[in-house]
Amino acid sequence: MRFTSERRLDDTVLERAFTLGDIPGFLWTPVSASAAAPVPLILLSPPPLGLRRVYPRLVERARGSAADGFATATIELPGKGDRPRWPAAERAAADLRRAMEAGRPVGEEIIDALVLPLVDASAPEWRAALDAFLALPEVGGPVGYSGGVIALGTRLAVVEPRISAAVLFAGSFVPRASFEEARRVTIPLHVLLQWDDEGNDRQAALDLFDAFGSPEKTLHANMGGHTGVPPFAGEAAARFFTRHLK
Amino acid sequence: MRFTSERRLDDTVLERAFTLGDIPGFLWTPVSASAAAPVPLILLSPPPLGLRRVYPRLVERARGSAADGFATATIELPGKGDRPRWPAAERAAADLRRAMEAGRPVGEEIIDALVLPLVDASAPEWRAALDAFLALPEVGGPVGYSGGVIALGTRLAVVEPRISAAVLFAGSFVPRASFEEARRVTIPLHVLLQWDDEGNDRQAALDLFDAFGSPEKTLHANMGGHTGVPPFAGEAAARFFTRHLK
Repeated sequence: MRFTSERRLDDTVLERAFTLGDIPGFLWTPVSASAAAPVPLILLSPPPLGLRRVYPRLVERARGSAADGFATATIELPGKGDRPRWPAAERAAADLRRAMEAGRPVGEEIIDALVLPLVDASAPEWRAALDAFLALPEVGGPVGYSGGVIALGTRLAVVEPRISAAVLFAGSFVPRASFEEARRVTIPLHVLLQWDDEGNDRQAALDLFDAFGSPEKTLHANMGGHTGVPPFAGEAAARFFTRHLK
Repeated sequence: MRFTSERRLDDTVLERAFTLGDIPGFLWTPVSASAAAPVPLILLSPPPLGLRRVYPRLVERARGSAADGFATATIELPGKGDRPRWPAAERAAADLRRAMEAGRPVGEEIIDALVLPLVDASAPEWRAALDAFLALPEVGGPVGYSGGVIALGTRLAVVEPRISAAVLFAGSFVPRASFEEARRVTIPLHVLLQWDDEGNDRQAALDLFDAFGSPEKTLHANMGGHTGVPPFAGEAAARFFTRHLK
């Protein structure tokens, strides 16, 4: 991991941009974090829109998490932002768009083609990034995951034992394979669902919540569309992390 | 309202037993509440098991609410505890028990016979009790409702304009009429659902949540059975009241 820039936000948060191989990302740490006082880490998985576009949302959450005593970090998803284009993923996204614009049901093949390669490619990248973050003396465990693409969060919750609690946003398509993976998840989960999310299948989200094997799992459903998560729901998710990672 | 006994809990909460006509009940107020500093009120509607049986749960919530600066109050439901027996309600409960023990689906007639008379009889009693509570100088508004029988909470949210926010526990049968009433509810709602509640119809609870007309409504679903609401879910409900009644 190579840091490419560094600045302070409000004198309380240190923001560092980095590259990990050819993957760009950001690490935010409370300025008070040190080798003598390492802080737990929350992996902040972005929605698949490119880091530049979602940066304002991420940095707002990074500030809140730093105030709660957490480091946060994110990396660019494959095919997004400044990373090399990924023609197969773009074709799958175009197929999805056409189906939705035509008002056709979004078939399982389209969802599989859209989501599974993204999960397969990015899960190992997040694990490698986690190695790098935890090698920093000011970052310790435990590790939480807060994310974006629910199939990726599900995969990481299964394959990455260092993640001990996750906030999952039920706002993206769920491939069939994720329901099977979900049964193998055992860490505490806090699932956010926007009840009137235009592009989301509410029943699939409820079925996925039901499928998770975790003894502690909580669903917080709120009114409004995809981007309308109310502030109090964000605060509840933050309290979930404080409960499990401190 | 006639107070029949009074005692202090931990020197911080004043517990008063009362009768309102022939209806027994309890009022809990922070000892710091006064005419000069009246506190908001939460109506604590009990599950239909008789106040004596649920007293430990109620008093625990009353203590927590008092610490948050709220008065709480409850009254006995008709046909329960020391109130006169209600043969029709007992027959409906027996019909329900037989259907469940035989593994038969619980028909709409059984649910209507069990729940609607209870709602029709008790809603006016809660409104009369609210008159009495608000006549006390140490109790002010706004008023919240936290309850037990979700059809009763739905009715009161429609007919009682002094209730400005409600926590509803989706743990009892929902008569058809409640879905229609739910569309007319507009106050902020916080709905608790135990995902594996043995005696509860999860789909009916989700449908009722969907039906509520409130622009702000939140569903908190947690693992476990009917009485297994985790402590953090109770704390989240308390924060909902603090957000809306303070």
